[in-house]
Amino acid sequence: MTATAESAYRNGVDTATLFATLDAVKGQPEIAKFQFRASNTWVNGTHSRTTISGFYGAQQEMEHEHVTTIDADHPAVLVGTDHAPTPVEYLLHAIAGCLTAGIANVAAARKVDLTKVTSTVEGDIDLLGILGLSGGSVRNGYQQIRVTFHIEGDADDETLRGIVEQSRRRSAVYDVLTNPTPVVIDVVTG
Amino acid sequence: MTATAESAYRNGVDTATLFATLDAVKGQPEIAKFQFRASNTWVNGTHSRTTISGFYGAQQEMEHEHVTTIDADHPAVLVGTDHAPTPVEYLLHAIAGCLTAGIANVAAARKVDLTKVTSTVEGDIDLLGILGLSGGSVRNGYQQIRVTFHIEGDADDETLRGIVEQSRRRSAVYDVLTNPTPVVIDVVTG
Repeated sequence: MTATAESAYRNGVDTATLFATLDAVKGQPEIAKFQFRASNTWVNGTHSRTTISGFYGAQQEMEHEHVTTIDADHPAVLVGTDHAPTPVEYLLHAIAGCLTAGIANVAAARKVDLTKVTSTVEGDIDLLGILGLSGGSVRNGYQQIRVTFHIEGDADDETLRGIVEQSRRRSAVYDVLTNPTPVVIDVVTG
Repeated sequence: MTATAESAYRNGVDTATLFATLDAVKGQPEIAKFQFRASNTWVNGTHSRTTISGFYGAQQEMEHEHVTTIDADHPAVLVGTDHAPTPVEYLLHAIAGCLTAGIANVAAARKVDLTKVTSTVEGDIDLLGILGLSGGSVRNGYQQIRVTFHIEGDADDETLRGIVEQSRRRSAVYDVLTNPTPVVIDVVTG
């Protein structure tokens, strides 16, 4: 008997539960409807604070294990108090985190053991847009975002690149950044 | 003599410096070219960690006052370890922080003193997309994001609503979410 016992965990991903979750959603698609939430409070100037805690999913209200509080601000050169990264820098964190989680999941599903995944993200922005000084010729947001991954594991170059590509194809943040997402803003005063 | 001395600070915004910055950019538009950056390292499973520190702007390399480290993860219901919010929740923080900073700046420029700005953000997402179970009929990202502001200050309803609207028109994050932004992904293996 030389059968190999495959661990259910690979890259820290519980693959047995991952596949069981996929099967559960196939049988009951409505459990895939999620709503994520954040609450923000203005502190002073360009400084504000967000709390992230509860969300809806799998047909019930859920809570993260920990309440997370994160700040945003503008640096001094942009007339802020630099208590925290700018809102647009959190977009760079979001794309890196989303693609990296996907890489770990896809690699686990494909039985590839990863030893290292790092990435650097750069976003080019011309502030003539948000400053209202371009006459409408310069967009407000990033003109381009570039993500460079360094990835190592027990697979060849083509397989590793295929894992990154599959993560991109299934990335929620990549979709939101590269395609239009409706944002509705309501205001209550007084 | 009943002339009123106007403070240069309003809502914590240094309006004198804000207007001086606008004048400086008008005279030398190339100082408005910025590049923001983030570095991410995979920790385990769906958990990764981002560091934000340096950026380029005003024709020089710059550093935030503090290095910021932020994590991302998936909750247990999505087969993660829930060490931190999901990447898509950081998008909600980003839009709230960007619009709120803009509200403070626009209000200061319009000589409105704000006493309270809070917001809640909700994002609806059907995970059939990222799970690859929709046959391509469900997008990977948010189907809709809703931001609800509660805003108070020494101005009437119409003026306060106009401040929020002007912030939306000048928001970098609103632009990135609602319009396509190119995201280039490079991979280095081995």
